[in-house]
Amino acid sequence: MKTVKIGLLGLGTVGGGALNIIQHTLPEIERRLGQSIEVAIIAVRDLTRTRSVDTQNIPLTDNATEVVNHPDVDIVVELMGGTGLAKSLLETAIQNGKHIVTANKALIAEHGNALFALAKKHNVIISYEAAVAGGIPVIKAMREGLAANKVEWVAGIINGTGNYILTEMKKPGADFAAVLKVAQELGYAEADPTFDVEGIDAAHKLTILASIAFGIELQFNKVYTEGISQITADDIRFAEQLDYEIKHLGVASRLENGFSLRVHPTMVPKSVLIANVSGVMNAVMAFGNHVGPTMYYGPGAGAGPTASSVVADIVEVIRWKEQPIDVQVPALGFALDQLQSAPVVSIDEIETSYYLRCFAKDHVGVLAKITAILADSNISIEHLHQEPCSQEANAATLVIITNHVKESLLNTAIETLSELDDIEGDIMRIRIESLGA
Amino acid sequence: MKTVKIGLLGLGTVGGGALNIIQHTLPEIERRLGQSIEVAIIAVRDLTRTRSVDTQNIPLTDNATEVVNHPDVDIVVELMGGTGLAKSLLETAIQNGKHIVTANKALIAEHGNALFALAKKHNVIISYEAAVAGGIPVIKAMREGLAANKVEWVAGIINGTGNYILTEMKKPGADFAAVLKVAQELGYAEADPTFDVEGIDAAHKLTILASIAFGIELQFNKVYTEGISQITADDIRFAEQLDYEIKHLGVASRLENGFSLRVHPTMVPKSVLIANVSGVMNAVMAFGNHVGPTMYYGPGAGAGPTASSVVADIVEVIRWKEQPIDVQVPALGFALDQLQSAPVVSIDEIETSYYLRCFAKDHVGVLAKITAILADSNISIEHLHQEPCSQEANAATLVIITNHVKESLLNTAIETLSELDDIEGDIMRIRIESLGA
Repeated sequence: MKTVKIGLLGLGTVGGGALNIIQHTLPEIERRLGQSIEVAIIAVRDLTRTRSVDTQNIPLTDNATEVVNHPDVDIVVELMGGTGLAKSLLETAIQNGKHIVTANKALIAEHGNALFALAKKHNVIISYEAAVAGGIPVIKAMREGLAANKVEWVAGIINGTGNYILTEMKKPGADFAAVLKVAQELGYAEADPTFDVEGIDAAHKLTILASIAFGIELQFNKVYTEGISQITADDIRFAEQLDYEIKHLGVASRLENGFSLRVHPTMVPKSVLIANVSGVMNAVMAFGNHVGPTMYYGPGAGAGPTASSVVADIVEVIRWKEQPIDVQVPALGFALDQLQSAPVVSIDEIETSYYLRCFAKDHVGVLAKITAILADSNISIEHLHQEPCSQEANAATLVIITNHVKESLLNTAIETLSELDDIEGDIMRIRIESLGA
Repeated sequence: MKTVKIGLLGLGTVGGGALNIIQHTLPEIERRLGQSIEVAIIAVRDLTRTRSVDTQNIPLTDNATEVVNHPDVDIVVELMGGTGLAKSLLETAIQNGKHIVTANKALIAEHGNALFALAKKHNVIISYEAAVAGGIPVIKAMREGLAANKVEWVAGIINGTGNYILTEMKKPGADFAAVLKVAQELGYAEADPTFDVEGIDAAHKLTILASIAFGIELQFNKVYTEGISQITADDIRFAEQLDYEIKHLGVASRLENGFSLRVHPTMVPKSVLIANVSGVMNAVMAFGNHVGPTMYYGPGAGAGPTASSVVADIVEVIRWKEQPIDVQVPALGFALDQLQSAPVVSIDEIETSYYLRCFAKDHVGVLAKITAILADSNISIEHLHQEPCSQEANAATLVIITNHVKESLLNTAIETLSELDDIEGDIMRIRIESLGA
């Protein structure tokens, strides 16, 4: 049996997971592949660290360039993260004719266009299933399984930390700060949670999903991103009453004049399956013009799930690596010279319905003023709910669901509303997506 | 751009769907593939029939052998169904060196072993994504996306008709016969619904899922199959009260002494996502030892969804067809000579918990007798509910949830219970699967 040698960059959570799979599930993989896999060398940051995986017969180095220049290594597996050193190492590896497997979403989202072009030039493959939604083979499903479709939209719960927080906030008495603290204690959230809760991580993943859905260049800097830290327990409760769930969704959709790429808290009808995805789990819906709605669900992070995708990519690269590059599935699902240049449109251009929540002084005529302002902007009210404000006497909480309206129009109306003396504090606005329901 | 010619066998619902995709979404497919697809010939049953798709520039024939012998045809796409003529046509096509794409679940489940061996001998590919769960790329996801895993179990809602019926039976006053009639009127169920409601169609699909999950030969005749026609509105209601959904699941699992392959009504906790898959939609859960639980969801039937998978397979075959067969993904995900021979175990061997429902005369001591019989068999009762029987005076409906117990043991206990004078009619038994909850 032929043995393919790989070099690992990084032996942290995911690197250890990948090594563990290769060490313990290799017979099953060989039954599939008809070839074997050997880890020839691993670059680690600290050679003296004690490890939970067995590295006895594998050379370790703290000089990562050794891995990308190693003459025996066919495939470089990058699991170190970051967009600096990782990028230059992979560039060297590609120039050396090595194939690449990576779980690095930031690197692909921010530098993928250049890396894919370089890989094409050097006839090597870059595989990155683990970069989006961890263990869920969603890149493969969309890029190959939906190849007969024009994808209309993609919507995903692609950050487990955020979904865990929003799920836990449904418990009575829970608020964002308290739940975040628990998430940090459980290791679900980092000490600095910005990357997860402000949607940057999700924006990286959405960038990739949008490109493989529509066949457009990676455009991370064009993604509109809004976090979940402003969501209150009241919002969660009102959503529940209205038969919605609040999810931190990445949404990419095909519009008449371009594409919309955005990550923000979203109210989704409970009747849509993805609304029922709870805790740290991830799920991606993709709507194809022929297949209709499909969804892919599973664990979006963790050693085992992420390494599952990494090793599946290694298997795939081994299958493909001797074959001509032009018959293979292109990195973004579409040939690089076939990527569309339609623009990513501003968030102001989208049209959807909205949940608005504000505190209003309990004066006669307040409701008349508010509804008049909305009517003046041609915004219909689908639902209105008023209840005494729990935080303040003589104030009421108002919840409004609007009809479909252009976001710029809604923003203007919100500005006008904010200027009313009767409105206290900020007006909360959450976009609603029906996702085909 | 190179053009690959295909020959279609059948121009019914799915055949028309495939032709429609090729005619209307070809530019998008070409952007992905870098090659074009042309339908060179179509075999139809009746040349005179009016069609909803445009066949103006495509030669039609009512002699299907013309298609499989056609010198220009590279790929034969079989969408006629059945296991007789379809089988012999595909054998000829394979012997002629044509690659095969098929949506024929019965053919693959019943004759796949021989067909795959023949294909290997003649260096051609058989692709069959559309045979399981219609538009959901679940074969691809499991065979390739989970390639790093030892799959522990698969569980799927893989018959849309059955799922539609069970979903509709949740409505007040609905019973099986009435809902089936509506399903027939809507075209969701055939005039003779046996194939769907008795689980034969699901057993075909489960056979395939089990083989690609575990790397075992296709063994359709070993699948235990039980339909949904015995489920009553009462069962649906009790399941609801107990926080379960009744689903017609196909389940394949790895046991110590072999594999379990079965299709039967199953109670699933509502907290498991698949319990929330309703109407005609399909979903397949696969549990890998590294990735954990994953799920694939979408439409399991219909022209568009099924043809979406058929055309994706055509794209894939075009990518692979010039490459050596031994680097390709094997038909069942595992090399044919690596398929395991562990036995499919009898349904008597499985161990799970059960829902029992029976009518008992409202006598003093009945409950004592019943619980004593269960205790004698070492079956613990997790839950017991008794309510006046709606159909009969002086009778009560008893609902029991057992702990985990071997099925053979439970069956013996049910036999003993049935002999009691106090029990009226049959005892209903529904297996419960927690699916990781």
